[in-house]
Amino acid sequence: MALINENYLKLPGSYLFSEIARRVNQFKQENPDADIIRLGIGDVTRPLTPAVIQAMHDAVDEMGRAESFRGYGPEQGYDFLIQKIIDNDFTSRGIQVDVDEVFVSDGSKPDTANFQEIFGLNNIIAVTDPVYPVYVDSNVMAGRTGRFNEKGQFDNIVYLPCTEANGMKPELPKTRVDMLYLCFPNNPTGMTLTRDELKQWVDYARENKSIILYDAAYEAFIQEADIPRSIYEIEGAREVAVEFRSFSKTAGFTGTRCAYTVVPKEVMAYDQDGNAHSLNKFWLRRQTTKFNGVSYPVQVAAATIYSEAGQKEIRDNINYYMENAKMIREGLISFGYKVFGGVNAPYIWLKTPDNLGSWEFFDKLLKQANVVGTPGAGFGASGEGYFRLTAFGTRENTARALERIRTKM
Amino acid sequence: MALINENYLKLPGSYLFSEIARRVNQFKQENPDADIIRLGIGDVTRPLTPAVIQAMHDAVDEMGRAESFRGYGPEQGYDFLIQKIIDNDFTSRGIQVDVDEVFVSDGSKPDTANFQEIFGLNNIIAVTDPVYPVYVDSNVMAGRTGRFNEKGQFDNIVYLPCTEANGMKPELPKTRVDMLYLCFPNNPTGMTLTRDELKQWVDYARENKSIILYDAAYEAFIQEADIPRSIYEIEGAREVAVEFRSFSKTAGFTGTRCAYTVVPKEVMAYDQDGNAHSLNKFWLRRQTTKFNGVSYPVQVAAATIYSEAGQKEIRDNINYYMENAKMIREGLISFGYKVFGGVNAPYIWLKTPDNLGSWEFFDKLLKQANVVGTPGAGFGASGEGYFRLTAFGTRENTARALERIRTKM
Repeated sequence: MALINENYLKLPGSYLFSEIARRVNQFKQENPDADIIRLGIGDVTRPLTPAVIQAMHDAVDEMGRAESFRGYGPEQGYDFLIQKIIDNDFTSRGIQVDVDEVFVSDGSKPDTANFQEIFGLNNIIAVTDPVYPVYVDSNVMAGRTGRFNEKGQFDNIVYLPCTEANGMKPELPKTRVDMLYLCFPNNPTGMTLTRDELKQWVDYARENKSIILYDAAYEAFIQEADIPRSIYEIEGAREVAVEFRSFSKTAGFTGTRCAYTVVPKEVMAYDQDGNAHSLNKFWLRRQTTKFNGVSYPVQVAAATIYSEAGQKEIRDNINYYMENAKMIREGLISFGYKVFGGVNAPYIWLKTPDNLGSWEFFDKLLKQANVVGTPGAGFGASGEGYFRLTAFGTRENTARALERIRTKM
Repeated sequence: MALINENYLKLPGSYLFSEIARRVNQFKQENPDADIIRLGIGDVTRPLTPAVIQAMHDAVDEMGRAESFRGYGPEQGYDFLIQKIIDNDFTSRGIQVDVDEVFVSDGSKPDTANFQEIFGLNNIIAVTDPVYPVYVDSNVMAGRTGRFNEKGQFDNIVYLPCTEANGMKPELPKTRVDMLYLCFPNNPTGMTLTRDELKQWVDYARENKSIILYDAAYEAFIQEADIPRSIYEIEGAREVAVEFRSFSKTAGFTGTRCAYTVVPKEVMAYDQDGNAHSLNKFWLRRQTTKFNGVSYPVQVAAATIYSEAGQKEIRDNINYYMENAKMIREGLISFGYKVFGGVNAPYIWLKTPDNLGSWEFFDKLLKQANVVGTPGAGFGASGEGYFRLTAFGTRENTARALERIRTKM
């Protein structure tokens, strides 16, 4: 008799974005003429840029000719892309990364979800609260988190609250933690850490032989000079940190699918006898066994982002979104809202007025302003009473949504 | 202190295809002028077909315009592709499959490797011997297989030998088995099961509440009428079988990346209390959490395979490869080799002459004929003394390789 993985039964029933979709659909059925503006799910609206489109066309044509056709590529990605990543994202900032330390993949969501597989099940994980749900759910499925308790949390996860009191910056854990998920610029709060702040985490990990799983999917949105774009800007991070990067938001690849993960060869985890093992080797084995590489035309497209034309085009798109972020942030402040984020990130995290619950505010915003956002409570217990808006809409919709918030809320 | 997943330490050191690459590279260094022909790794050589290329171009252009740009798609694939899959691969053969039972993915290797995640760790798995290594390795990593023993096998796996005596067709397991990996047409032996033979496996699974993980990646190569193309042609299979299908070999997508997996809603696995749970729901949760969908232009390309032009083009390619298979099979037989497969599959499984070991034959073939194949021992203990050749080369290279085998071996 085949047994099921019972860890899945611990997952809370409804996924955040499914519940949002359900409520929006119900509202649309009851109000078929409502003109709904979505600033909820973090999906981009700007199309792929001309240089990327041209490169994909060329790569597709290569695939149509026997002499240039590409079959199976290396699971970890083609060198032509990896070298461009290293030159542009790391070497240019004085960071050393080797070719065999970069793993190209089809997304940071898969990578952040899959990466826990190479760790033992007895590790204690820590996550910020609020947090991107995938870090938690993937560990629940693996059986690393224990029971879902009355507080809406898992018994064996260490939650690091991000609150108004600490300015949405988590404090170091007070109990033992082996795997630390950090995401900066943060989804959902839009907040960042300075170099000095991030250094405390690297130092903690070095002292405790912990691993930092650093999600830097939004680094391209950083505007301020003292905010690190890579955790490897911090001394010693190569010993303790894995970094996840994505082309999804940087270059509009949410539907095109390409990302990469950096696993320095120095990062070690340990067996029961205390022997050190390089995570790089384990991840290589995991990827070569359970993954088959990214589509060739997609890798060519990703490499083109690093051309002169590509860099200019994606910079224009990022500026477009960050102008939206500024509008939302400054608009909400002028309407009297308390807000976080939106300066170095495409997310704005607002405190709901009048102590409304996150879902109460969601319903009110939907009904009164016909605007969809994301309830903070969906990201964790400390997200209750907060709400996320994204800067990925069109300029026009962003302006219209703000006007409605001003006049109808 | 972060602990490593120690199950990885049980994996035998060198992966089959890495060892082949190592030996070929060494030979090339010592013989830089040798004209090596590769009939080893199962990668295709025919380019993407014109209809597929045109569809990808159109989809890329869509991605370049704001009004038709696609961001995040459904993790399980777009309905436009799923509906074409159902209509052409199932409904046309009288098989009922629902839209929410098809999960589009980036490959059958990932799917067959990942699918075990939704099962409990105490299940006993069975694999044929020889076998595609990914089924075994992914279960080793998860911790379902026990120790790697002196026989070169894992203690807790039930191996089902495919030998000359049983005509490369496995016999039903004699001890309890919960998860059964079957691949037909088989990689590496190239053999198939008839409907009656496959029915025994479905009946076994129904009696024992086991699950059959049925890898049908090579179904498009089936030529004979009494060979089932889908396990769902067998009565009751919808209760016990998951089927993996791929566009890799069917349409030359090894570098383009698209596949799909069928999980009927009736297939159940059980919790410790004996409650039934639908695998379909668990796989949906797994995919929505740990996967982010296939690149949009790739899904459009895959859908085009089902157009009239697409069907004709891929049929021509399959015929090309199957003509190679026939040449290899008939050539080897005429040279006095004992061979299996090559009739309904692009693989030819030959018995090594003079009781040579698989790797001895590999080295001899490389040195004397400058032809690369795959040692059967790399697929399991029962593969020792056998050798795999593939029909995915060009016609010219296939003919030249055969001529060399005739004259130099």
